[in-house]
Amino acid sequence: MTPKELRDLSARGDFDHHTAGYCEGYVQANMVALPQEYAKDFKRFCENNPKPCPLLEVVGPGAHKTRRLADNADLLNTIPRYLIWKDGCIDKEVPQIGEYYSDDLVFFLLGCSFSFEQALVSSGIRLRHIEMNRNVSMFNTDIPLKASGPFFGKMVVSMRPIYYELVPQACLITGQYPDVHGEPVHIGYPEMIGIQNIKQADYGDSVEIKPDEIPVFWACGVTPQNVLVEAKLPFAITHAPGFMFVGDMLNEDFST
Amino acid sequence: MTPKELRDLSARGDFDHHTAGYCEGYVQANMVALPQEYAKDFKRFCENNPKPCPLLEVVGPGAHKTRRLADNADLLNTIPRYLIWKDGCIDKEVPQIGEYYSDDLVFFLLGCSFSFEQALVSSGIRLRHIEMNRNVSMFNTDIPLKASGPFFGKMVVSMRPIYYELVPQACLITGQYPDVHGEPVHIGYPEMIGIQNIKQADYGDSVEIKPDEIPVFWACGVTPQNVLVEAKLPFAITHAPGFMFVGDMLNEDFST
Repeated sequence: MTPKELRDLSARGDFDHHTAGYCEGYVQANMVALPQEYAKDFKRFCENNPKPCPLLEVVGPGAHKTRRLADNADLLNTIPRYLIWKDGCIDKEVPQIGEYYSDDLVFFLLGCSFSFEQALVSSGIRLRHIEMNRNVSMFNTDIPLKASGPFFGKMVVSMRPIYYELVPQACLITGQYPDVHGEPVHIGYPEMIGIQNIKQADYGDSVEIKPDEIPVFWACGVTPQNVLVEAKLPFAITHAPGFMFVGDMLNEDFST
Repeated sequence: MTPKELRDLSARGDFDHHTAGYCEGYVQANMVALPQEYAKDFKRFCENNPKPCPLLEVVGPGAHKTRRLADNADLLNTIPRYLIWKDGCIDKEVPQIGEYYSDDLVFFLLGCSFSFEQALVSSGIRLRHIEMNRNVSMFNTDIPLKASGPFFGKMVVSMRPIYYELVPQACLITGQYPDVHGEPVHIGYPEMIGIQNIKQADYGDSVEIKPDEIPVFWACGVTPQNVLVEAKLPFAITHAPGFMFVGDMLNEDFST
Protein backbone atom coordinates (compact mmCIF):
# COMPACT_ATOMS: atom_id res chain seq x y z
CA MET A 1 0.00 0.00 0.00
CA THR A 2 1.30 3.47 -0.83
CA PRO A 3 0.91 6.28 1.73
CA LYS A 4 -1.65 7.94 -0.51
CA GLU A 5 -3.66 4.72 -0.73
CA LEU A 6 -3.60 4.38 3.06
CA ARG A 7 -4.66 8.01 3.50
CA ASP A 8 -7.44 7.61 0.92
CA LEU A 9 -8.73 4.50 2.73
CA SER A 10 -8.63 6.42 6.02
CA ALA A 11 -10.49 9.33 4.46
CA ARG A 12 -13.25 6.94 3.37
CA GLY A 13 -13.34 5.29 6.82
CA ASP A 14 -11.94 2.03 5.44
CA PHE A 15 -8.63 1.88 7.39
CA ASP A 16 -8.94 1.60 11.14
CA HIS A 17 -5.67 0.04 12.31
CA HIS A 18 -2.46 1.19 13.97
CA THR A 19 0.04 2.12 11.26
CA ALA A 20 3.21 0.36 12.50
CA GLY A 21 4.54 -1.89 9.74
CA TYR A 22 2.48 -0.20 6.98
CA CYS A 23 3.95 1.76 4.03
CA GLU A 24 7.48 0.51 4.55
CA GLY A 25 10.05 3.23 4.14
CA TYR A 26 7.69 6.21 4.43
CA VAL A 27 7.69 8.72 7.27
CA GLN A 28 5.00 8.52 9.96
CA ALA A 29 4.09 11.45 12.16
CA ASN A 30 2.28 12.31 15.37
CA MET A 31 -0.34 15.06 15.13
CA VAL A 32 -1.47 17.72 17.61
CA ALA A 33 -4.04 20.40 16.65
CA LEU A 34 -4.62 23.41 18.90
CA PRO A 35 -6.52 26.71 18.83
CA GLN A 36 -4.26 29.51 17.60
CA GLU A 37 -3.97 31.17 21.02
CA TYR A 38 -1.91 28.18 22.27
CA ALA A 39 0.07 27.58 19.09
CA LYS A 40 3.03 29.89 19.79
CA ASP A 41 3.68 28.40 23.23
CA PHE A 42 3.33 24.89 21.87
CA LYS A 43 5.76 25.58 19.03
CA ARG A 44 8.32 26.84 21.55
CA PHE A 45 7.64 23.80 23.72
CA CYS A 46 8.54 21.55 20.76
CA GLU A 47 11.68 23.54 20.06
CA ASN A 48 12.64 23.25 23.76
CA ASN A 49 12.14 19.47 23.74
CA PRO A 50 13.22 18.29 20.29
CA LYS A 51 13.81 14.64 21.21
CA PRO A 52 10.22 13.80 22.24
CA CYS A 53 8.68 16.56 20.06
CA PRO A 54 10.61 16.78 16.77
CA LEU A 55 8.64 19.27 14.71
CA LEU A 56 8.35 18.19 11.06
CA GLU A 57 5.60 20.49 9.75
CA VAL A 58 3.13 23.12 10.94
CA VAL A 59 -0.16 23.61 9.03
CA GLY A 60 -2.52 26.51 9.58
CA PRO A 61 -4.17 28.56 10.93
CA GLY A 62 -6.57 28.80 8.03
CA ALA A 63 -5.42 25.59 6.35
CA HIS A 64 -5.67 21.84 6.98
CA LYS A 65 -3.65 20.32 4.13
CA THR A 66 0.01 19.33 4.34
CA ARG A 67 2.73 20.75 2.10
CA ARG A 68 6.00 19.24 3.29
CA LEU A 69 5.30 15.68 4.44
CA ALA A 70 2.81 15.02 1.68
CA ASP A 71 1.35 17.09 -1.16
CA ASN A 72 -2.10 18.26 -0.07
CA ALA A 73 -3.05 15.53 2.38
CA ASP A 74 -6.16 16.55 4.30
CA LEU A 75 -5.45 16.44 8.03
CA LEU A 76 -9.18 16.29 8.77
CA ASN A 77 -9.58 12.67 7.65
CA THR A 78 -6.31 11.04 6.44
CA ILE A 79 -5.25 9.88 9.91
CA PRO A 80 -7.00 6.58 10.81
CA ARG A 81 -8.12 7.65 14.31
CA TYR A 82 -8.25 10.93 16.20
CA LEU A 83 -8.74 11.85 19.84
CA ILE A 84 -10.87 14.87 20.75
CA TRP A 85 -9.67 16.45 24.02
CA LYS A 86 -11.75 18.69 26.29
CA ASP A 87 -10.33 20.31 29.44
CA GLY A 88 -7.36 17.90 29.47
CA CYS A 89 -9.46 14.74 29.09
CA ILE A 90 -10.19 12.50 26.12
CA ASP A 91 -13.75 13.22 25.11
CA LYS A 92 -14.08 11.05 22.00
CA GLU A 93 -12.15 8.79 19.62
CA VAL A 94 -13.26 9.48 16.02
CA PRO A 95 -12.27 8.52 12.45
CA GLN A 96 -12.40 12.09 11.10
CA ILE A 97 -12.61 15.61 12.50
CA GLY A 98 -14.41 17.75 9.89
CA GLU A 99 -17.13 18.73 12.35
CA TYR A 100 -14.50 20.02 14.85
CA TYR A 101 -12.58 22.14 12.35
CA SER A 102 -12.43 25.92 12.44
CA ASP A 103 -10.08 28.42 10.74
CA ASP A 104 -8.50 28.94 14.14
CA LEU A 105 -6.85 25.50 14.38
CA VAL A 106 -3.07 24.99 13.99
CA PHE A 107 -1.81 21.48 13.17
CA PHE A 108 1.59 20.24 14.35
CA LEU A 109 3.14 17.14 12.79
CA LEU A 110 5.87 15.59 14.92
CA GLY A 111 8.43 12.89 14.12
CA CYS A 112 7.67 9.33 15.18
CA SER A 113 9.90 6.44 16.15
CA PHE A 114 8.16 4.20 13.61
CA SER A 115 10.37 6.01 11.11
CA PHE A 116 13.58 4.44 12.36
CA GLU A 117 12.12 0.99 12.93
CA GLN A 118 12.58 0.05 9.29
CA ALA A 119 16.28 0.91 9.56
CA LEU A 120 16.58 -1.30 12.66
CA VAL A 121 14.82 -4.22 10.99
CA SER A 122 16.91 -3.82 7.79
CA SER A 123 20.04 -4.15 9.95
CA GLY A 124 18.84 -7.47 11.35
CA ILE A 125 17.51 -6.11 14.65
CA ARG A 126 14.23 -7.90 15.43
CA LEU A 127 11.35 -5.88 16.87
CA ARG A 128 8.84 -8.02 18.73
CA HIS A 129 5.84 -5.69 18.47
CA ILE A 130 6.15 -5.64 14.66
CA GLU A 131 6.62 -9.41 14.46
CA MET A 132 3.54 -9.87 16.69
CA ASN A 133 1.58 -7.19 14.80
CA ARG A 134 1.06 -5.18 18.00
CA ASN A 135 1.41 -1.54 18.94
CA VAL A 136 4.78 -0.52 20.44
CA SER A 137 4.99 -0.35 24.27
CA MET A 138 4.98 3.17 25.68
CA PHE A 139 5.62 4.34 29.25
CA ASN A 140 5.37 7.47 31.35
CA THR A 141 8.74 8.44 32.90
CA ASP A 142 10.04 10.99 35.40
CA ILE A 143 12.29 12.64 32.76
CA PRO A 144 11.41 16.36 33.01
CA LEU A 145 10.54 18.51 29.99
CA LYS A 146 11.38 22.20 29.49
CA ALA A 147 8.16 24.14 30.03
CA SER A 148 6.66 26.77 27.68
CA GLY A 149 3.50 28.63 28.72
CA PRO A 150 0.87 26.09 29.80
CA PHE A 151 2.91 23.18 28.43
CA PHE A 152 5.02 21.15 30.84
CA GLY A 153 5.31 17.62 32.16
CA LYS A 154 7.33 14.43 31.82
CA MET A 155 8.60 12.54 28.80
CA VAL A 156 6.78 9.50 27.39
CA VAL A 157 9.09 6.84 25.93
CA SER A 158 8.65 3.90 23.60
CA MET A 159 10.35 0.65 24.67
CA ARG A 160 11.77 -2.07 22.46
CA PRO A 161 13.42 -5.21 23.85
CA ILE A 162 16.68 -5.62 21.90
CA TYR A 163 18.92 -8.72 21.78
CA TYR A 164 21.80 -7.76 24.08
CA GLU A 165 24.56 -8.05 21.48
CA LEU A 166 22.77 -5.58 19.18
CA VAL A 167 22.00 -2.78 21.66
CA PRO A 168 25.01 -0.56 20.75
CA GLN A 169 24.18 -1.04 17.05
CA ALA A 170 20.53 -0.06 17.68
CA CYS A 171 21.83 3.08 19.37
CA LEU A 172 24.06 4.00 16.40
CA ILE A 173 21.38 3.30 13.78
CA THR A 174 18.68 5.40 15.45
CA GLY A 175 21.26 8.13 16.16
CA GLN A 176 21.31 8.65 12.40
CA TYR A 177 17.69 9.89 12.57
CA PRO A 178 17.86 12.96 14.83
CA ASP A 179 14.64 14.43 13.39
CA VAL A 180 12.58 11.38 14.31
CA HIS A 181 13.64 11.00 17.99
CA GLY A 182 17.23 9.88 17.25
CA GLU A 183 19.25 7.69 19.63
CA PRO A 184 17.69 6.21 22.79
CA VAL A 185 17.14 8.36 25.88
CA HIS A 186 17.85 5.37 28.10
CA ILE A 187 19.26 1.87 27.92
CA GLY A 188 18.68 -0.92 30.36
CA TYR A 189 17.26 0.16 33.73
CA PRO A 190 13.57 1.20 33.63
CA GLU A 191 13.55 2.23 37.31
CA MET A 192 16.24 4.85 36.62
CA ILE A 193 13.73 6.81 34.53
CA GLY A 194 10.80 6.29 36.86
CA ILE A 195 9.21 3.22 35.27
CA GLN A 196 8.08 0.95 38.11
CA ASN A 197 6.48 -1.89 36.17
CA ILE A 198 8.09 -2.66 32.82
CA LYS A 199 5.59 -5.50 32.23
CA GLN A 200 2.64 -3.10 32.08
CA ALA A 201 2.79 -0.49 29.30
CA ASP A 202 1.04 2.84 29.96
CA TYR A 203 0.13 3.16 26.26
CA GLY A 204 0.17 0.64 23.40
CA ASP A 205 0.71 -3.08 24.03
CA SER A 206 2.93 -4.76 26.62
CA VAL A 207 5.60 -7.12 25.23
CA GLU A 208 7.80 -9.74 26.82
CA ILE A 209 11.48 -8.98 27.52
CA LYS A 210 13.46 -12.21 27.16
CA PRO A 211 16.47 -13.02 29.38
CA ASP A 212 18.91 -12.29 26.53
CA GLU A 213 17.30 -8.92 25.75
CA ILE A 214 17.70 -5.43 27.18
CA PRO A 215 14.87 -2.85 27.27
CA VAL A 216 15.86 0.19 25.21
CA PHE A 217 13.88 3.44 25.52
CA TRP A 218 13.37 6.17 22.93
CA ALA A 219 11.68 9.56 23.31
CA CYS A 220 8.10 9.15 22.11
CA GLY A 221 5.74 11.41 20.19
CA VAL A 222 2.95 10.55 22.61
CA THR A 223 4.71 12.97 24.98
CA PRO A 224 2.68 15.95 23.71
CA GLN A 225 -0.52 14.13 24.66
CA ASN A 226 0.75 13.72 28.19
CA VAL A 227 1.50 17.42 28.16
CA LEU A 228 -1.97 18.29 26.83
CA VAL A 229 -3.49 16.44 29.77
CA GLU A 230 -1.47 18.58 32.19
CA ALA A 231 -2.21 21.80 30.28
CA LYS A 232 -5.97 21.16 30.55
CA LEU A 233 -6.68 23.15 27.38
CA PRO A 234 -10.41 23.62 26.73
CA PHE A 235 -10.01 21.98 23.33
CA ALA A 236 -7.42 20.02 21.32
CA ILE A 237 -7.23 17.21 18.78
CA THR A 238 -4.51 14.57 18.38
CA HIS A 239 -4.03 11.32 16.50
CA ALA A 240 -4.83 8.21 18.60
CA PRO A 241 -1.60 6.55 19.89
CA GLY A 242 -0.20 4.25 17.19
CA PHE A 243 -2.60 5.58 14.53
CA MET A 244 -0.26 7.96 12.76
CA PHE A 245 -0.22 10.32 9.83
CA VAL A 246 1.64 8.58 6.98
CA GLY A 247 3.46 10.99 4.66
CA ASP A 248 5.02 10.75 1.21
CA MET A 249 8.56 11.56 2.37
CA LEU A 250 10.91 8.65 2.94
CA ASN A 251 12.43 7.87 6.31
CA GLU A 252 15.78 8.07 4.53
CA ASP A 253 15.04 11.74 3.89
CA PHE A 254 15.48 12.17 7.66
CA SER A 255 18.76 10.22 7.91
CA THR A 256 22.02 12.14 8.44
CA MET B 1 54.26 16.69 26.88
CA THR B 2 54.38 15.82 23.16
CA PRO B 3 54.28 12.16 22.09
CA LYS B 4 57.92 12.42 20.97
CA GLU B 5 58.92 13.79 24.37
CA LEU B 6 57.10 10.94 26.11
CA ARG B 7 58.73 8.38 23.82
CA ASP B 8 62.17 9.94 24.33
CA LEU B 9 61.70 9.83 28.11
CA SER B 10 60.64 6.18 27.83
CA ALA B 11 63.68 5.39 25.68
CA ARG B 12 65.94 6.82 28.40
CA GLY B 13 64.08 4.88 31.12
CA ASP B 14 62.66 8.11 32.59
CA PHE B 15 58.91 7.48 32.03
CA ASP B 16 57.43 4.52 33.88
CA HIS B 17 53.70 5.26 34.18
CA HIS B 18 50.50 4.14 32.50
CA THR B 19 49.78 6.47 29.59
CA ALA B 20 46.05 7.23 30.11
CA GLY B 21 45.58 10.99 30.24
CA TYR B 22 48.97 11.80 28.70
CA CYS B 23 49.51 13.53 25.32
CA GLU B 24 45.92 14.66 24.98
CA GLY B 25 44.59 14.22 21.47
CA TYR B 26 47.23 11.77 20.23
CA VAL B 27 46.64 8.15 19.31
CA GLN B 28 47.71 5.42 21.73
CA ALA B 29 48.25 1.82 20.62
CA ASN B 30 48.60 -1.69 21.99
CA MET B 31 51.64 -3.65 20.83
CA VAL B 32 52.20 -7.35 20.13
CA ALA B 33 55.50 -8.67 18.71
CA LEU B 34 55.76 -12.23 17.43
CA PRO B 35 58.25 -14.41 15.56
CA GLN B 36 57.55 -14.33 11.82
CA GLU B 37 56.21 -17.91 11.68
CA TYR B 38 53.13 -16.80 13.70
CA ALA B 39 52.68 -13.39 12.08
CA LYS B 40 50.41 -14.42 9.20
CA ASP B 41 47.95 -16.23 11.47
CA PHE B 42 47.99 -13.36 13.92
CA LYS B 43 47.31 -10.81 11.19
CA ARG B 44 44.32 -12.84 10.03
CA PHE B 45 43.18 -13.14 13.65
CA CYS B 46 43.14 -9.34 13.91
CA GLU B 47 41.26 -9.04 10.65
CA ASN B 48 38.72 -11.62 11.92
CA ASN B 49 38.21 -9.70 15.18
CA PRO B 50 38.51 -6.02 14.29
CA LYS B 51 36.68 -4.67 17.34
CA PRO B 52 39.10 -5.95 20.00
CA CYS B 53 42.08 -6.07 17.60
CA PRO B 54 41.93 -3.04 15.27
CA LEU B 55 45.18 -3.22 13.31
CA LEU B 56 46.74 0.23 12.87
CA GLU B 57 50.28 -0.67 11.71
CA VAL B 58 52.54 -3.68 11.14
CA VAL B 59 56.33 -3.23 11.42
CA GLY B 60 58.88 -5.84 10.32
CA PRO B 61 60.20 -8.43 9.90
CA GLY B 62 63.62 -6.84 9.63
CA ALA B 63 62.53 -3.48 11.06
CA HIS B 64 61.52 -2.07 14.43
CA LYS B 65 60.67 1.55 13.66
CA THR B 66 57.19 2.87 12.96
CA ARG B 67 56.19 4.64 9.74
CA ARG B 68 52.47 5.32 10.00
CA LEU B 69 51.66 6.12 13.63
CA ALA B 70 54.89 8.05 14.16
CA ASP B 71 57.88 8.84 12.00
CA ASN B 72 60.68 6.47 12.99
CA ALA B 73 59.73 5.68 16.59
CA ASP B 74 61.82 2.80 17.88
CA LEU B 75 59.53 0.03 19.12
CA LEU B 76 62.39 -1.45 21.18
CA ASN B 77 62.30 1.28 23.85
CA THR B 78 59.63 3.96 23.26
CA ILE B 79 56.88 2.04 25.08
CA PRO B 80 57.15 2.63 28.86
CA ARG B 81 56.84 -1.04 29.87
CA TYR B 82 56.94 -4.35 28.02
CA LEU B 83 55.99 -7.89 28.94
CA ILE B 84 58.17 -10.80 27.79
CA TRP B 85 56.10 -13.95 27.27
CA LYS B 86 57.43 -17.53 27.27
CA ASP B 87 55.22 -20.56 26.59
CA GLY B 88 52.08 -18.53 27.24
CA CYS B 89 53.25 -17.08 30.56
CA ILE B 90 54.63 -13.68 31.52
CA ASP B 91 58.33 -14.18 32.09
CA LYS B 92 59.43 -10.59 32.77
CA GLU B 93 58.28 -6.97 32.82
CA VAL B 94 60.98 -4.73 31.33
CA PRO B 95 61.46 -1.07 30.26
CA GLN B 96 63.08 -1.91 26.88
CA ILE B 97 63.52 -4.97 24.68
CA GLY B 98 66.78 -4.47 22.72
CA GLU B 99 68.26 -7.68 24.09
CA TYR B 100 65.23 -9.70 22.87
CA TYR B 101 65.19 -8.33 19.33
CA SER B 102 65.95 -10.37 16.24
CA ASP B 103 65.30 -9.73 12.52
CA ASP B 104 62.60 -12.35 12.75
CA LEU B 105 60.20 -10.28 14.92
CA VAL B 106 57.00 -8.72 13.52
CA PHE B 107 55.39 -5.86 15.50
CA PHE B 108 51.64 -5.27 15.48
CA LEU B 109 50.22 -1.96 16.69
CA LEU B 110 46.53 -2.14 17.59
CA GLY B 111 43.99 0.59 18.32
CA CYS B 112 43.29 1.46 21.96
CA SER B 113 40.21 2.80 23.70
CA PHE B 114 42.28 5.60 25.26
CA SER B 115 41.94 7.21 21.82
CA PHE B 116 38.23 7.87 22.19
CA GLU B 117 38.37 8.90 25.84
CA GLN B 118 39.32 12.45 24.95
CA ALA B 119 36.25 12.73 22.74
CA LEU B 120 34.06 11.47 25.60
CA VAL B 121 35.57 13.94 28.08
CA SER B 122 35.29 16.82 25.59
CA SER B 123 31.56 16.07 25.33
CA GLY B 124 31.11 16.40 29.08
CA ILE B 125 31.16 12.68 29.87
CA ARG B 126 33.18 12.17 33.05
CA LEU B 127 35.53 9.19 33.26
CA ARG B 128 36.31 8.17 36.82
CA HIS B 129 39.61 6.37 36.17
CA ILE B 130 41.04 9.48 34.49
CA GLU B 131 39.77 11.79 37.24
CA MET B 132 41.32 9.46 39.84
CA ASN B 133 44.51 9.03 37.79
CA ARG B 134 44.06 5.26 37.66
CA ASN B 135 44.28 2.65 34.95
CA VAL B 136 40.99 1.74 33.24
CA SER B 137 39.13 -1.36 34.52
CA MET B 138 39.40 -4.39 32.24
CA PHE B 139 37.57 -7.72 32.43
CA ASN B 140 37.64 -11.15 30.84
CA THR B 141 34.33 -12.06 29.18
CA ASP B 142 32.75 -15.09 27.53
CA ILE B 143 32.39 -13.27 24.18
CA PRO B 144 33.97 -15.69 21.67
CA LEU B 145 36.59 -14.63 19.11
CA LYS B 146 37.01 -15.97 15.57
CA ALA B 147 40.04 -18.27 15.64
CA SER B 148 43.02 -18.18 13.24
CA GLY B 149 45.75 -20.82 13.54
CA PRO B 150 46.89 -21.02 17.17
CA PHE B 151 45.01 -17.85 18.08
CA PHE B 152 41.62 -18.16 19.75
CA GLY B 153 39.91 -17.27 23.01
CA LYS B 154 37.52 -14.76 24.54
CA MET B 155 37.29 -10.97 24.34
CA VAL B 156 38.71 -8.69 27.03
CA VAL B 157 36.70 -5.51 27.58
CA SER B 158 37.36 -2.17 29.23
CA MET B 159 34.59 -0.85 31.50
CA ARG B 160 33.67 2.75 32.23
CA PRO B 161 30.83 3.74 34.56
CA ILE B 162 28.78 6.37 32.68
CA TYR B 163 26.12 8.68 34.14
CA TYR B 164 22.87 7.07 33.02
CA GLU B 165 21.57 10.03 30.99
CA LEU B 166 24.76 10.10 28.88
CA VAL B 167 25.03 6.42 27.94
CA PRO B 168 23.41 6.74 24.47
CA GLN B 169 25.65 9.75 23.77
CA ALA B 170 28.76 7.78 24.84
CA CYS B 171 27.68 5.09 22.39
CA LEU B 172 27.32 7.56 19.49
CA ILE B 173 30.61 9.35 20.22
CA THR B 174 32.72 6.19 20.38
CA GLY B 175 30.89 4.82 17.33
CA GLN B 176 32.63 7.59 15.39
CA TYR B 177 35.97 5.86 16.06
CA PRO B 178 35.58 2.45 14.40
CA ASP B 179 39.37 1.97 14.06
CA VAL B 180 39.96 2.33 17.79
CA HIS B 181 37.33 -0.15 19.07
CA GLY B 182 34.30 1.96 18.11
CA GLU B 183 30.96 1.77 19.92
CA PRO B 184 30.52 -0.40 23.06
CA VAL B 185 30.18 -4.19 22.78
CA HIS B 186 27.84 -4.21 25.75
CA ILE B 187 25.81 -1.82 27.87
CA GLY B 188 24.54 -2.45 31.35
CA TYR B 189 24.50 -6.10 32.41
CA PRO B 190 27.99 -7.53 33.19
CA GLU B 191 26.67 -11.06 33.81
CA MET B 192 25.32 -11.22 30.23
CA ILE B 193 28.90 -11.22 28.93
CA GLY B 194 30.26 -13.58 31.57
CA ILE B 195 31.55 -11.06 34.12
CA GLN B 196 30.69 -12.44 37.56
CA ASN B 197 32.19 -9.75 39.80
CA ILE B 198 32.09 -6.23 38.39
CA LYS B 199 33.78 -4.89 41.55
CA GLN B 200 36.99 -6.81 40.84
CA ALA B 201 38.76 -5.92 37.60
CA ASP B 202 40.80 -8.68 35.93
CA TYR B 203 43.31 -6.10 34.63
CA GLY B 204 43.92 -2.45 35.52
CA ASP B 205 42.23 -0.83 38.51
CA SER B 206 38.75 -1.44 39.91
CA VAL B 207 36.46 1.61 40.09
CA GLU B 208 33.19 2.28 41.85
CA ILE B 209 29.90 2.28 39.89
CA LYS B 210 27.54 4.78 41.49
CA PRO B 211 23.76 4.21 41.67
CA ASP B 212 23.13 6.75 38.89
CA GLU B 213 25.71 5.17 36.58
CA ILE B 214 25.61 2.26 34.16
CA PRO B 215 28.65 0.09 33.36
CA VAL B 216 29.51 0.37 29.67
CA PHE B 217 31.89 -2.11 28.04
CA TRP B 218 34.16 -1.62 25.05
CA ALA B 219 36.33 -4.18 23.20
CA CYS B 220 39.83 -3.89 24.64
CA GLY B 221 43.27 -4.18 23.11
CA VAL B 222 44.39 -6.40 25.98
CA THR B 223 42.41 -9.14 24.19
CA PRO B 224 45.49 -10.25 22.16
CA GLN B 225 47.37 -10.86 25.41
CA ASN B 226 44.59 -13.15 26.57
CA VAL B 227 44.90 -14.92 23.25
CA LEU B 228 48.68 -15.19 23.53
CA VAL B 229 48.23 -16.98 26.86
CA GLU B 230 45.97 -19.54 25.18
CA ALA B 231 48.26 -19.92 22.15
CA LYS B 232 51.20 -20.76 24.41
CA LEU B 233 53.74 -19.47 21.86
CA PRO B 234 57.32 -20.16 22.87
CA PHE B 235 58.08 -16.44 22.69
CA ALA B 236 56.25 -13.11 22.35
CA ILE B 237 56.50 -9.51 23.54
CA THR B 238 53.67 -7.08 24.31
CA HIS B 239 53.27 -3.71 26.01
CA ALA B 240 52.26 -3.95 29.67
CA PRO B 241 48.49 -3.26 30.12
CA GLY B 242 47.91 0.49 30.31
CA PHE B 243 51.49 1.31 29.24
CA MET B 244 50.84 2.10 25.59
CA PHE B 245 52.71 3.18 22.49
CA VAL B 246 51.92 6.89 21.97
CA GLY B 247 51.98 7.95 18.30
CA ASP B 248 52.11 11.27 16.47
CA MET B 249 48.76 10.81 14.71
CA LEU B 250 45.75 12.52 16.25
CA ASN B 251 42.75 10.63 17.54
CA GLU B 252 40.70 12.82 15.22
CA ASP B 253 42.55 11.18 12.31
CA PHE B 254 40.61 8.02 13.25
CA SER B 255 37.21 9.70 13.50
CA THR B 256 34.65 9.06 10.73
